[in-house]
Amino acid sequence: MKKVYMDHASATPVRKEVIDAMMPYFGEKFGNPSTIYDIGSEIKKDIDEQREKVATLIGAEGKEIIFTSSGAEANNLAIKGVAVAKQKKGDHIIISAIEHHSVLNSARYLERTGFEVTFLPVDEYGLVSPARLAKAIRPETILVSIMHANNEIGTIQPISDLSAICREKEIVFHTDAVATVGNIPVDVNDLGVDLLTISGVSLGAPKGIGALYFRKNTRLMPLIHGGIQERGRRGGTENVPGIIGFGKASELAMEELPENMNHVRKLRDRLISGVSERIEQVKLTGHPEKRLPGHASFCVQAIEGEAMLIMLNVKGIYANTGSACASKALKTSPVLVAIGLSADLAQGSAVFTMNRTNSIEDIDYILTELELSVKKLRSLSPIWREKAAA
Amino acid sequence: MKKVYMDHASATPVRKEVIDAMMPYFGEKFGNPSTIYDIGSEIKKDIDEQREKVATLIGAEGKEIIFTSSGAEANNLAIKGVAVAKQKKGDHIIISAIEHHSVLNSARYLERTGFEVTFLPVDEYGLVSPARLAKAIRPETILVSIMHANNEIGTIQPISDLSAICREKEIVFHTDAVATVGNIPVDVNDLGVDLLTISGVSLGAPKGIGALYFRKNTRLMPLIHGGIQERGRRGGTENVPGIIGFGKASELAMEELPENMNHVRKLRDRLISGVSERIEQVKLTGHPEKRLPGHASFCVQAIEGEAMLIMLNVKGIYANTGSACASKALKTSPVLVAIGLSADLAQGSAVFTMNRTNSIEDIDYILTELELSVKKLRSLSPIWREKAAA
Repeated sequence: MKKVYMDHASATPVRKEVIDAMMPYFGEKFGNPSTIYDIGSEIKKDIDEQREKVATLIGAEGKEIIFTSSGAEANNLAIKGVAVAKQKKGDHIIISAIEHHSVLNSARYLERTGFEVTFLPVDEYGLVSPARLAKAIRPETILVSIMHANNEIGTIQPISDLSAICREKEIVFHTDAVATVGNIPVDVNDLGVDLLTISGVSLGAPKGIGALYFRKNTRLMPLIHGGIQERGRRGGTENVPGIIGFGKASELAMEELPENMNHVRKLRDRLISGVSERIEQVKLTGHPEKRLPGHASFCVQAIEGEAMLIMLNVKGIYANTGSACASKALKTSPVLVAIGLSADLAQGSAVFTMNRTNSIEDIDYILTELELSVKKLRSLSPIWREKAAA
Repeated sequence: MKKVYMDHASATPVRKEVIDAMMPYFGEKFGNPSTIYDIGSEIKKDIDEQREKVATLIGAEGKEIIFTSSGAEANNLAIKGVAVAKQKKGDHIIISAIEHHSVLNSARYLERTGFEVTFLPVDEYGLVSPARLAKAIRPETILVSIMHANNEIGTIQPISDLSAICREKEIVFHTDAVATVGNIPVDVNDLGVDLLTISGVSLGAPKGIGALYFRKNTRLMPLIHGGIQERGRRGGTENVPGIIGFGKASELAMEELPENMNHVRKLRDRLISGVSERIEQVKLTGHPEKRLPGHASFCVQAIEGEAMLIMLNVKGIYANTGSACASKALKTSPVLVAIGLSADLAQGSAVFTMNRTNSIEDIDYILTELELSVKKLRSLSPIWREKAAA
């Protein structure tokens, strides 16, 4: 049976080049980088080399990179680390209503400890308006966090416009760029951000590695207190193989970015136009142009998304309903509610995220199977049959 | 040249069986465990299997294990997670004076946020006295954290005596067992602890994985807020290959524990007696009997420890001065100060941690080279020459 994996935003196979780069660091190069003898201290240089590679991918300097265990940890470090470090200056934080759970729940935690949090609404495409951000800012605002692109609807935010407003008022600006780094060009100076979250997983590095970019002089309380690792900013023995893999994956992403973008954009456009031609009453979610090149997301009327994805799964197609981290108990996606969809329509969500390994044939296979699945599910739906009869 | 690696407490090569177990999870089994389709959701079962293996090694149940990125993260989660969750009940915490940096600096951080912390002194062997702990407890004490064994001096604490005092008063008891799990039998029920920290590194699992055992009903605020992973207790995509490796390493540790203990105890005893026979004015640090079976630590009078270790390094011997995480700027180890050593003597610290791969020949090689190094360094030491002349 044909297999088409299109959930690269949730996980992607570790690339062979990355595995090859990592392998020596499990066995022969196993030393602890904090030790003074050669087989330990040599690893420290190797780590710093990867730091440079990750930094290069986002236009930063090596010393502005803190390695973490995931994008989620980097988001927690950014939100809680800045809030605690700047608490004396103010107690107000602004995030968008469609942030990843690791930002959202960090902000909610801070709310319970005495901070005030404003959750900025988004428009029907998921965009945050700079004017609305400007209005939400108060004298006691210390931190704004708005994600670069949303993993569920693919919309890319006007980060440089948003950060400019904050820079002027000396408010720290963080962006969760897990969905963009490696998929579109990302430059911390063009974006004008103080902090930026990256995850290894979406680049083809192994699970268990991420990073936080922090601009020089950004004050940050560690999330994991400990020893001298990461220059005192993150305790615990470094995940050396993960860091090596992350560096290699960043290098590959940098080299291949223009070609990969071009490739997935063609696939995405074919999927979006194919779906709208072949399936009636389906809504593209997110912005039609300001979206990730390899991201197509839909809500299909009168369909239960999970049932649709399980039917596709049976046909060897792997797609998502939204965020892999969302609670399974949570019936309606907060992101889809935030862009104004009815709970009914939001139920029929399907998200396809593609990468360089996908092909035109993959898209055509999805179109055929998706059309069949929707037909079958709708034939079983009382709501749909009523409508058809009317 | 002969190579003798004896810093297994800082890092140890990932075992071949562990690498073999992990490998499929980089490539073919790459799915995100939180997804609904088969290639993702199947991984969740694999993770829970490893959870059982890690739990078995410490006499716990799988659902009492939270996977983290390191022992340091688990220590931070235990200390800060309990303190914040129980803040309404009280604001006093007790730790020993010789805890790992991740416990020590978490407690110091809490001190700055309004908690009171008592740092319990230790005796000349590094032991915490149950009577002293009982005296330090106040009505507002919510948490006690005392490490199972110290990585720098090898002393094993009387945890069950200490925890019994806390249990009676309904105070949460945490132990950092990074130095013991896999090296001596560890059972959370025998120890009577509510929380226990494990690290993968010391078991031959890869860097980047650890775990916190938490007894049912122990309230804990997450350190990394996020999605549904680890049943809401730790956000971020699971480090699947790391978890698989950790499970395999736990399984092997369980099988081999009695044999390995026996083996390293013989090596340790040969090293300790050889050093005391061949080198004058050297002090065994830590307890002579209540110590880790594979741990030998000394302070050599009139010697600069780093110089000694670098000389050994040249001869292919890898040992440590103390904790790999200690600041290189820190001239005197707080642990050695806590057991009452003079700053002078504490300078000459050397720590050897052995495992099943070490041999009698390794010990004899160390004894020869250590004796030579000490002689050479002392011949250059004005203090030593004065003494010899006197």
